[in-house]
Amino acid sequence: MTANENPVTSFVDLLIVGAGPAGLVLALWASKFGMKTRIIDEKDSRVATGRADGLHSRTLEILHNFGAAQDIISRAYHINEICSWNPDPGNEYHIRRTQRTVAQPCHLSRFTQSGLNQGATEEILENKIRSEGRISVERNTIPTALRFDDKEASHHDKDVYPIFVTLRRIDPDETSVTCDGEVVGNEHSTTKNGANISTGATKDNQEIVRAKYLVGCDGAHSWIRHQVGIHMEGEKTDTHFGVMDVVPLTDFPDIRISCVIHSKHGSVMTVPRENRLVRLYVQLGETLRGNDLAGSKDVTPERILGYAKKMFQPYHIDFKICDWHSVYTVGQRLAPTFDFKNRIFLAGDSVHTHSPTLGQGMNVSMQDAYNLGWKLGMVITGVAQPSILRTYTQERWNVAKALIELDKRMTKFYSMGPSKESQDYQPFRDQFSQFISGVAITYTPSELIDIASQQDLADNIKLGQRLPSYKVVCNAEGNLVHLSDMLPNNGTWRILVFAGDLESPSQFEKVQQLGVNLESLLGRYKTADRAVFEVFLIHAGTREFNILRLHPVYHPWNDALGWDYWKVFSNDVEDFEPCQSPYDEYGVSKKHGCVVTLRPDQHVSYIGPMDSFGDLERFFCRILV
Amino acid sequence: MTANENPVTSFVDLLIVGAGPAGLVLALWASKFGMKTRIIDEKDSRVATGRADGLHSRTLEILHNFGAAQDIISRAYHINEICSWNPDPGNEYHIRRTQRTVAQPCHLSRFTQSGLNQGATEEILENKIRSEGRISVERNTIPTALRFDDKEASHHDKDVYPIFVTLRRIDPDETSVTCDGEVVGNEHSTTKNGANISTGATKDNQEIVRAKYLVGCDGAHSWIRHQVGIHMEGEKTDTHFGVMDVVPLTDFPDIRISCVIHSKHGSVMTVPRENRLVRLYVQLGETLRGNDLAGSKDVTPERILGYAKKMFQPYHIDFKICDWHSVYTVGQRLAPTFDFKNRIFLAGDSVHTHSPTLGQGMNVSMQDAYNLGWKLGMVITGVAQPSILRTYTQERWNVAKALIELDKRMTKFYSMGPSKESQDYQPFRDQFSQFISGVAITYTPSELIDIASQQDLADNIKLGQRLPSYKVVCNAEGNLVHLSDMLPNNGTWRILVFAGDLESPSQFEKVQQLGVNLESLLGRYKTADRAVFEVFLIHAGTREFNILRLHPVYHPWNDALGWDYWKVFSNDVEDFEPCQSPYDEYGVSKKHGCVVTLRPDQHVSYIGPMDSFGDLERFFCRILV
Ligand SMILES: Cc1cc2nc3c(=O)[nH]c(=O)nc-3n(C[C@H](O)[C@H](O)[C@H](O)COP(=O)(O)OP(=O)(O)OC[C@H]3O[C@@H](n4cnc5c(N)ncnc54)[C@H](O)[C@@H]3O)c2cc1C
Ligand SMILES: Cc1cc2nc3c(=O)[nH]c(=O)nc-3n(C[C@H](O)[C@H](O)[C@H](O)COP(=O)(O)OP(=O)(O)OC[C@H]3O[C@@H](n4cnc5c(N)ncnc54)[C@H](O)[C@@H]3O)c2cc1C
Repeated sequence: MTANENPVTSFVDLLIVGAGPAGLVLALWASKFGMKTRIIDEKDSRVATGRADGLHSRTLEILHNFGAAQDIISRAYHINEICSWNPDPGNEYHIRRTQRTVAQPCHLSRFTQSGLNQGATEEILENKIRSEGRISVERNTIPTALRFDDKEASHHDKDVYPIFVTLRRIDPDETSVTCDGEVVGNEHSTTKNGANISTGATKDNQEIVRAKYLVGCDGAHSWIRHQVGIHMEGEKTDTHFGVMDVVPLTDFPDIRISCVIHSKHGSVMTVPRENRLVRLYVQLGETLRGNDLAGSKDVTPERILGYAKKMFQPYHIDFKICDWHSVYTVGQRLAPTFDFKNRIFLAGDSVHTHSPTLGQGMNVSMQDAYNLGWKLGMVITGVAQPSILRTYTQERWNVAKALIELDKRMTKFYSMGPSKESQDYQPFRDQFSQFISGVAITYTPSELIDIASQQDLADNIKLGQRLPSYKVVCNAEGNLVHLSDMLPNNGTWRILVFAGDLESPSQFEKVQQLGVNLESLLGRYKTADRAVFEVFLIHAGTREFNILRLHPVYHPWNDALGWDYWKVFSNDVEDFEPCQSPYDEYGVSKKHGCVVTLRPDQHVSYIGPMDSFGDLERFFCRILV
Repeated sequence: MTANENPVTSFVDLLIVGAGPAGLVLALWASKFGMKTRIIDEKDSRVATGRADGLHSRTLEILHNFGAAQDIISRAYHINEICSWNPDPGNEYHIRRTQRTVAQPCHLSRFTQSGLNQGATEEILENKIRSEGRISVERNTIPTALRFDDKEASHHDKDVYPIFVTLRRIDPDETSVTCDGEVVGNEHSTTKNGANISTGATKDNQEIVRAKYLVGCDGAHSWIRHQVGIHMEGEKTDTHFGVMDVVPLTDFPDIRISCVIHSKHGSVMTVPRENRLVRLYVQLGETLRGNDLAGSKDVTPERILGYAKKMFQPYHIDFKICDWHSVYTVGQRLAPTFDFKNRIFLAGDSVHTHSPTLGQGMNVSMQDAYNLGWKLGMVITGVAQPSILRTYTQERWNVAKALIELDKRMTKFYSMGPSKESQDYQPFRDQFSQFISGVAITYTPSELIDIASQQDLADNIKLGQRLPSYKVVCNAEGNLVHLSDMLPNNGTWRILVFAGDLESPSQFEKVQQLGVNLESLLGRYKTADRAVFEVFLIHAGTREFNILRLHPVYHPWNDALGWDYWKVFSNDVEDFEPCQSPYDEYGVSKKHGCVVTLRPDQHVSYIGPMDSFGDLERFFCRILV
């Protein structure tokens, strides 16, 4: 193309700007839904080391359902315990262990918090996307202009492309690695793209992409956010922490345990990691006060070590290998909305930043994208009403808000020196652990969470929360399986029929009648190329029950493949393992059962009795096309 | 190279002929030891479907220690239960379930028997080898001449290459897939290499490889075995089974359970598998009797189905998809020795064949290679005396012999019709399950299994058997880990110090003294590039114990990496899980402990008290250089 020609124009369902954790999770969904998608990133290559250092339970559950958790789990360090250390009353310049704390009550999730560097996590996600063969990250590419055509958007046609983005391939040497987030380190960016590049770009190496939907996953300095005029609210503080990943040489006995250390000289937080690394967060507060971040380049690993040495007394600590280091300034900022006209969305650091104290940055960013991805998928494939996209800001803004409140409390705890809480850490931690793990996130009623649900039918299946996974018995195979292993991220809604006691003729009759109704519902919303629903049945009896007695909707037939034997489960786990039965875990009546529906992200959207099919039908009527 | 030149000559430590399951496992070891190795196979590509259909516990343990089990486990079907079906007394031409049988007592291994086709298993092994970057399979290559130079071999020098093998690259079209084993199917070979090719080969595409050691893993018609004049002993019978992998269309309720069906019309054995497949072994006995295998080409899947249909009555069975089928004739054959002058070895089907009734063919073949590989590795790297190679035939011949005895009993059971055993299958099965799982294989005393061991110090650590794996607590990390996860196949011997009660000063003193002795032992046998030993310590107390109090041999120091925190374990598992403690599982005294050594294949070679270092030293003196 010469400079005189018009740039090439292409059309996509979805354009994703930024291939960090948020962008990659969104691309995973896009790949599952087969949406025509492009994902660009200004950087030459992935983050190699450093940055976020851990994955919480809910994130691992999500990645497991994408088939990507195993690699992470086998490479990561698993955090079971946190030890708190405080000044020794005998010599207050020495520390001593005051408490061992369970990091996370084990009933919360089958996965524990895991320490692994962000680069490794991104690598695993990107490999997964590549292995599916539909989407690949286009690097060295930036958006230089964005135009939104209101008139086009107002057409009630699913094939409109109201978003015009000009893309430019950049020379890898043109920009250095951008330093975004609340954290700045020894990786300062020299040029920053944005409005300047937008006006200054030549026509060379340019193309125009017209998109139905655009998502900015472009980090804390989001160019997309600027373009649509959304501004972050909140402040930075003058509290600074030095962060480094080192292989420690030390006689500190808890160096391979995550520690919360409050010393007379300031506080340190340690997080053991893969490959003998330990992440240290070292309080630099007083030194840099009033200094903003200008001095952060002078904060070498050796200088951070100098502070740490004092705090670890009477133990010695040193290192020869430092994998990464940085300085962060505590601050909390939040955008007032995460979308622009339900066509352009923002996820991750582009709309919320906070300190790494709770280890949430990467996790919450991925969870944003996870919430958004399937909604876009259902709308773009023509299955759901575009109105469901409204729930994205609604659901995720509340999470970001709550996170920022917690982050303020936690950073105060770290910067204020030894306290009652640092001495008796367990009860303090317990207030946070559900939120930190991510499993307690509850979305409030909306078109996607049916307010008419009957929570009392399933005490431990919380409306709006993700379904916890317990082991069930595959009726036909006689194998113990985690229910969530049956719920991969394939974009379908799940109708879980807790069938109760099938030995009771009246109950059996109800379940069969529900089968007839479900078959008609499934028929109504069937698309040519993908399922909208999957039905699973879990009965309260033993697996002596012959599943072929059930209505075929519960074990669908295929002319070449025969019956589907992987949809009916029994409660009879005691036969296999000394564990609670799923009916007991979920708090469902073994006699009457109930019906539960799950969104494609496993959040519970409806709970009702066996014979209220009408409610279920009305619920889906409102959201499906 | 023109036909007139002499062929190129290259030198290798190890030449492996045949890249089936046995050859691939041997190549894995060779890769770990960094031996200069070539592996050739006449075939163009791997087995795609069919053949062996399952992996038993011990094989999975072995592959786990090579880091290759996870992929298999996630793709495979897991066999927990076996149902037996027999004629219904009400209508003897109908079958009915008579018993549900646990496939394998769960204390035997952490891994259960898994159904996956041989091609997938070979693929996973070959990928693993490739990923290590040292060895790759050379396909379309056969040996055409073999010469052994006795005089060269007699030099007491480790750098002699007494084996001369001429290799030839063949045109992929030249030979079709060879059909070996006791099983012949619809894949008859047309040309068979061997003596003919050996004389008929031209000099084109030829080269000479001089090897220190040669292993024939070239299957039931082993060319290597013929060359060294070892002949199989034993007979084929006239009992035939039709074997097929189909996706069944059926109302038989146990189709996703492994079944042993004895009907009036003959017997069927079913093994559910990956991807909705089920393997059926259908008795063809009477039909083909006296017919040898000539008629086996006529045995189409449809014909096998015809017999099966009768046997499954009153249930219906059919299929549209057949992945693979074959016919096998029961027979058992064994070579009188597995080596030639301790320089040329044979493994797998090349020295023993039998029926697939026990699903052992592939498993025992891999286990042969597993036994041989580390011995060759230690000898070739100059660490161990060549005399240890003698133990290969000794140890593995006994296993093959026992297998053949069991196979005879099992094939009789399948071919003789309904019986007391088929009605009450559990006690019959129980006699076999330890052997089938592979975990009970016990090697008898030799230079590698110290007869002077004190078995009473560790009731459940059986001299000569592989160490069972239980969970222990990593003292420094406070994580529950399976002991075997700490014992990857890296070629080292392991000295496990069950340290007992370290709170007792006299016991602590003994453990420290042992530490001093171990350090000197390790120093004596140190090589420049690889460890010969690893030391692990498991104490009977809680992890409040500070491991840095121990002699450094128990937590070795490295100037850049610091202390090694992954060698000391505590017994304190109750803190984490309701399970037995390792001291209880292993039957070791919590007070006095004991010392156990493991060979690189995890077989227990020595058990002694804390203060008998002299015995341990003498043991290693005999085998190490
Ligand atoms: C130095 C540093 C240290 C951190 N330490 C921690 C920690 O210890 N713990 C923790 O939990 N979190 C930490 N974080 C936060 C964590 O890394 C982020 O929360 C997380 O990466 C957010 O993911 P994201 O996908 O929203 O954004 P990012 O990971 O920032 O990804 C944004 C992507 O968009 C690309 N991009 C940006 N602008 C453009 C553009 N105009 N065009 C094209 N591409 C663009 C970027 O190259 C980048 O790949 C740290 C962050 C930084 C920067
Ligand atoms: C048709 C069939 C069905 C079977 N079904 C079952 C079953 O249901 N269950 C079960 O447990 N077992 C079964 N087996 C047995 C199982 O497949 C074998 O026991 C197992 O493959 C043995 O492994 P191996 O490595 O010793 O030999 P093989 O797997 O036979 O590997 C030998 C390799 O050597 C190569 N080779 C042979 N000659 C030469 C040469 N001259 N030069 C170079 N390369 C050569 C071959 O190409 C092959 O790759 C079956 C075998 C066959 C043939």
